[in-house]
Amino acid sequence: MQARIGELALLLGGELIGDSGVEVSRIGTLESAAPDTIAFLANPRYQSQLAASRAGCVIVGPAMREAAAARGAAIVCADPYLAHARLTQWWVARERGARAAGGIHPSAVVEAGALVDPAAAVGALAFVGRGARIEAGAVIGAQAHVGAGAYVGERTRLEPRAVLGEGCRIGARGIVHSGAVIGADGFGFADNQGEWVKIEQLGAVRIGDDVEIGANTCIDRGALDDTVIEDGVKLDNLVQIGHNVHVGAHSAFAGCVGVAGSAKIGRHCTAGGGAIILGHLELADHVHITAATVVTHSIRRPGQYSGLFPIDDNASWEKNAATLKQLHSLRERLRALEKKAS
Amino acid sequence: MQARIGELALLLGGELIGDSGVEVSRIGTLESAAPDTIAFLANPRYQSQLAASRAGCVIVGPAMREAAAARGAAIVCADPYLAHARLTQWWVARERGARAAGGIHPSAVVEAGALVDPAAAVGALAFVGRGARIEAGAVIGAQAHVGAGAYVGERTRLEPRAVLGEGCRIGARGIVHSGAVIGADGFGFADNQGEWVKIEQLGAVRIGDDVEIGANTCIDRGALDDTVIEDGVKLDNLVQIGHNVHVGAHSAFAGCVGVAGSAKIGRHCTAGGGAIILGHLELADHVHITAATVVTHSIRRPGQYSGLFPIDDNASWEKNAATLKQLHSLRERLRALEKKAS
Amino acid sequence: MQARIGELALLLGGELIGDSGVEVSRIGTLESAAPDTIAFLANPRYQSQLAASRAGCVIVGPAMREAAAARGAAIVCADPYLAHARLTQWWVARERGARAAGGIHPSAVVEAGALVDPAAAVGALAFVGRGARIEAGAVIGAQAHVGAGAYVGERTRLEPRAVLGEGCRIGARGIVHSGAVIGADGFGFADNQGEWVKIEQLGAVRIGDDVEIGANTCIDRGALDDTVIEDGVKLDNLVQIGHNVHVGAHSAFAGCVGVAGSAKIGRHCTAGGGAIILGHLELADHVHITAATVVTHSIRRPGQYSGLFPIDDNASWEKNAATLKQLHSLRERLRALEKKAS
Repeated sequence: MQARIGELALLLGGELIGDSGVEVSRIGTLESAAPDTIAFLANPRYQSQLAASRAGCVIVGPAMREAAAARGAAIVCADPYLAHARLTQWWVARERGARAAGGIHPSAVVEAGALVDPAAAVGALAFVGRGARIEAGAVIGAQAHVGAGAYVGERTRLEPRAVLGEGCRIGARGIVHSGAVIGADGFGFADNQGEWVKIEQLGAVRIGDDVEIGANTCIDRGALDDTVIEDGVKLDNLVQIGHNVHVGAHSAFAGCVGVAGSAKIGRHCTAGGGAIILGHLELADHVHITAATVVTHSIRRPGQYSGLFPIDDNASWEKNAATLKQLHSLRERLRALEKKAS
Repeated sequence: MQARIGELALLLGGELIGDSGVEVSRIGTLESAAPDTIAFLANPRYQSQLAASRAGCVIVGPAMREAAAARGAAIVCADPYLAHARLTQWWVARERGARAAGGIHPSAVVEAGALVDPAAAVGALAFVGRGARIEAGAVIGAQAHVGAGAYVGERTRLEPRAVLGEGCRIGARGIVHSGAVIGADGFGFADNQGEWVKIEQLGAVRIGDDVEIGANTCIDRGALDDTVIEDGVKLDNLVQIGHNVHVGAHSAFAGCVGVAGSAKIGRHCTAGGGAIILGHLELADHVHITAATVVTHSIRRPGQYSGLFPIDDNASWEKNAATLKQLHSLRERLRALEKKAS
Repeated sequence: MQARIGELALLLGGELIGDSGVEVSRIGTLESAAPDTIAFLANPRYQSQLAASRAGCVIVGPAMREAAAARGAAIVCADPYLAHARLTQWWVARERGARAAGGIHPSAVVEAGALVDPAAAVGALAFVGRGARIEAGAVIGAQAHVGAGAYVGERTRLEPRAVLGEGCRIGARGIVHSGAVIGADGFGFADNQGEWVKIEQLGAVRIGDDVEIGANTCIDRGALDDTVIEDGVKLDNLVQIGHNVHVGAHSAFAGCVGVAGSAKIGRHCTAGGGAIILGHLELADHVHITAATVVTHSIRRPGQYSGLFPIDDNASWEKNAATLKQLHSLRERLRALEKKAS
């Protein structure tokens, strides 16, 4: 694929510096760039790479305008990182468009009563259950699974081997990565004298528009009402969302995050990798949880919250961790000393 | 589906208050209930929802008898949560029964020498290897995988895209959710001057009756002997069980728990989400591990065990975490002061 | 399968004690061994099991030579654990060889333009995309997925239902376990006034030779350049490797480890189960991270590093954890006392 940088400047709404006819055929980093590459500089930390880069064109912010112009062609944008994001989308859409193949692969199994829009694609060895509905432009990847009565909105893609369970819904322009399981049973049991009696999970999963769900991530169906993921939510890989969780719009969780049942997460929240959010609690909007932190109670005020044990060389850690077990008694001893000294 | 509440009271062994001919067509929460809904109240915390609920019938405990009767039809049971669990099971069994389709889907691949009971079902695009045996009433979901020589007990369900590896066994009435992998190789290597030499994993996985295994959960095969999961164990999603682990009957692990190789877990144990249990150790029966806690040594006495860093606003956490690295020396300074003061 | 212990002694380069014609048909533990079993003793901790074992032959180190000879046949090797590893490999290779079935299963979908070596095998219901290349001796398991343009090196095995994404490469003699997803999109978004704008992930994943990747483990494709896993790396189950991570040769991560984007891990590093390594940092060669530890900054020196909260009975933990929130102020109070006392 090739593109003229004049065309790209128009696309990105940026100011073009240099010859609009210069062609690029690749998006790359400043460091690995060749003359056929368009690169971007967003983080001032990497400014030193700018002058040395062999990129055919660079996307920069206004502050870097002079430095970029000094080395060659550039597109100056208010937010170069956002411009880069949009460029990658445009690039990939053009590539995909060139090889799009609609229709249902002959090896796929589409049960009677499923509705697949003629402008949708169902890949090899995929399964679409009775009563499911696949909207226009949606792509069901090879070996993916759409359960009975499930719904896939316009232009949403299920990557190879993703699972959207029975009766679950995902809106438009979503992406479900390989191995993700939407709609497995929530973890619900009643204790009967030490034995667990299963509570059948009768709810479903309802996912809004523009949601991305990572590889091997799990979102459980609700016990009675639905589990809900609002518009614009982004979940990384290997995330666990328990039954009846509600994730507010535009929240994003990094890899390996776990959210227990019935937690209610606000809008625009984030959680770093490996964070655990316990169940039956609420996070306000704009709450940010540091990686590997455990949320044990509701958080009512926006802000950053943390709780992870600092890493240290093993010997130092051992000494401090051992002392930690006496912390409460150390406090008592300190108090006693204070009394004595007063 | 419809059911008369008189029939349900008999089923649940409860006392019926109200007209036995009232029909319900849905199980729901008190809050979202309509007149066609049967709901339950188990947790006194939600008692305030009882009077306001529009449910056609409510399941309550003896203590709520009067309050429930004051608003309409009710079924009074000794343990309303357990009654609710049983109701959901009966409900789902009736629904499933109505649409059960036995037999082997024509797109499934069943190798020669596999034994599939005529009363079992093998879904679309599923695979059953040579020498495997599927008992009566078992359901192998679409795109699921049963390896050569594996065994699936009566009425056990493998959900779509679950994997039961070569030679592994699961007993009766189990559920294996989508994406679960039973019988991948354990993580075993010998160090040969800095390079890892694979130890082939020659054991299998043996799973008892009434076991439920969550979506994308992994249970590794044993190195020499088998990995064993006893009857009634419940594992949530994204749980990792290493080779030669032994999980005692009726233990339950929440999402994202990891158990390292050769750990021996007792009966009736639980672990909260994200807990890590190291290898080559033992937990007694009735040991309960708090979420996100790391078990580093054997625990011989029943009880609740914890070890997670408390969450705090980020600024406070930073100060305390930094001080934590000096905790041992703080203790020494305190000791010195105590000597001086004595 | 049967083997004479004389043959095995030659294979392992060990000294044979006893009758070379003794036949064994199984590799087992000392404890569960029968006369048809060959077992090994590597850890002196299990020495007491030696005399009692019914094994037909035991593999031991030089220090155990006399004790082993006293009970029967033995093979004495410099490193009995390594010898055991090699024995298991030889054993499994012979078993597999006996039932190897090359070729493409008729139910598999191999797109036009894919190159499958005649000495490779593609299992039932597997998918191989256009332009992919599968080398001699490679095995693509049932229901596995090889994306367009992907590359699978000689004798590498994708287990059932593994995914190797579009354009991703794995070298020779690798193993990718069931459910692993190589090449899902990295987690990259630009913030546009509170909404996340996707950055298409244009890199791939490049994996060296002799790499093993665990069940349901995820390795994301790079944003622009590739994510790289060097030769001999071993990843356990449910591991998350973010985009543009670089893992140096012969490093090994236990289950549930998460590595965030652009982390650069040295050679011969290890991480225990559940460890989290944050992004944009570097670990030197020979850095070992304890289980459940969070790496928040670069580590430049080899060694063992730890940071996990010690487990305790719940009541003690609660007291210490509560006090932990006052740790910084305790230090201030101690300082004040010290001043007063000096």
